[in-house]
Amino acid sequence: MDTKPSLFTSLSPALINLYDLRNAVVVIIDVFRATSTIAAALQNGAKAVIPVDSVHLAIEMSKKLHCIAAGERDGVMAEGLQHGNSPLEYTSELIKNKTLVLTTTNGTRLLHLALDNGADNIITGTFCNISSVCDYVVKEQKNVILACAGWKDKFNLEDTLFAGAVINRVKEHFTIHCDSSLAAEYLYSQHKSNLLSFAKNFTHFHRLVSRFGYVEDIEYCLTEDNANILPLYMDGKLMAYTG
Amino acid sequence: MDTKPSLFTSLSPALINLYDLRNAVVVIIDVFRATSTIAAALQNGAKAVIPVDSVHLAIEMSKKLHCIAAGERDGVMAEGLQHGNSPLEYTSELIKNKTLVLTTTNGTRLLHLALDNGADNIITGTFCNISSVCDYVVKEQKNVILACAGWKDKFNLEDTLFAGAVINRVKEHFTIHCDSSLAAEYLYSQHKSNLLSFAKNFTHFHRLVSRFGYVEDIEYCLTEDNANILPLYMDGKLMAYTG
Repeated sequence: MDTKPSLFTSLSPALINLYDLRNAVVVIIDVFRATSTIAAALQNGAKAVIPVDSVHLAIEMSKKLHCIAAGERDGVMAEGLQHGNSPLEYTSELIKNKTLVLTTTNGTRLLHLALDNGADNIITGTFCNISSVCDYVVKEQKNVILACAGWKDKFNLEDTLFAGAVINRVKEHFTIHCDSSLAAEYLYSQHKSNLLSFAKNFTHFHRLVSRFGYVEDIEYCLTEDNANILPLYMDGKLMAYTG
Repeated sequence: MDTKPSLFTSLSPALINLYDLRNAVVVIIDVFRATSTIAAALQNGAKAVIPVDSVHLAIEMSKKLHCIAAGERDGVMAEGLQHGNSPLEYTSELIKNKTLVLTTTNGTRLLHLALDNGADNIITGTFCNISSVCDYVVKEQKNVILACAGWKDKFNLEDTLFAGAVINRVKEHFTIHCDSSLAAEYLYSQHKSNLLSFAKNFTHFHRLVSRFGYVEDIEYCLTEDNANILPLYMDGKLMAYTG
């Protein structure tokens, strides 16, 4: 009898309702760039990151809590926010002991969608904190949903590749009957030694690099364990989980 | 200036609303098995295949039109239908000069969803008729949406691989800024010489073969051009298009 927990990959926020999120670990994945920014901010000493789903709410909440309002819409800092969605902005000088209210086009929206769909154990993942993510999902011994944020509900490769990277590391601990997971792991295993050059083909790479020149962001977001901390969602905030 | 039409791949019926289907060729893809059954039936002389989205309607319409009601729900022939959803059932002895009313879990449902989303030029595709599909999309010089039926809105590999096979053949004629298409073509190009052995890992393979023993169906559905005809949807029917 197969007693391992199950692992599934949801390739788009529009597919998240197909999976049972209750009593599972839900990993929110938005490699370019929300979950990389969250990892960087917490790694550099932020007390918490509060993900919110509208620019208006980010501004309102930052005033109330006297903290930084940050984020983007369509890749650029939205009006009224103080900082954008680049992990490189959140140095310890800026963020240490501070709280960040963050709103982004895809990642923070997906987190709220997961909550609406019954998720009760949410973490965020990206290459920057892959080891922490893998350790946690193995230790919890629950079902896992790797939830890709994509771009406005469309599939994207960077989030799928991160799902594949996690599967590649943890698959022996899970039962996996899921074509999305099979495809994700295959794509990752074929490109793990050249992620950055493969990324040059992605639609989001073109959006971020050709339009805004964020090539250093891309490199940061694809580097394993450069902000190896575990953001766990609890009481409306993402905070570093220390076990 | 880039004047080629665009090509996109929709990996699930739940994503089809993200694409502009108007004035585009929409290729409905349900390799296991609806679009393979449609190709086989038309190749073997069926006058038309009428895709409908409920078992009840299939039965009602077949009585009214004095034709065969066929299809499946969850992989097995639904009660009240005369035939299932296996391409091997539709020999010329059975189907020549007859009309088939077909209802399936995924493929026929997606076709109606595409119509609801404004599609006005719909064909169906599978490995069995890949050359006809490729010739048509190149000749039309319109945008193309490769629409995968998946399984109950979940991503599946067989439909994605067929999308990749089409892209592999026609890509020079289109502008492709679409991570789904990039992933599909990569997966296909890496497995084109061993599709059948790769298919043994798919969830739908297990559903069809382990549960129902449909291994010959799988082989048929993955064979290129063994029913090389073009089913074009017009006035509520799929009929062989002869140009």
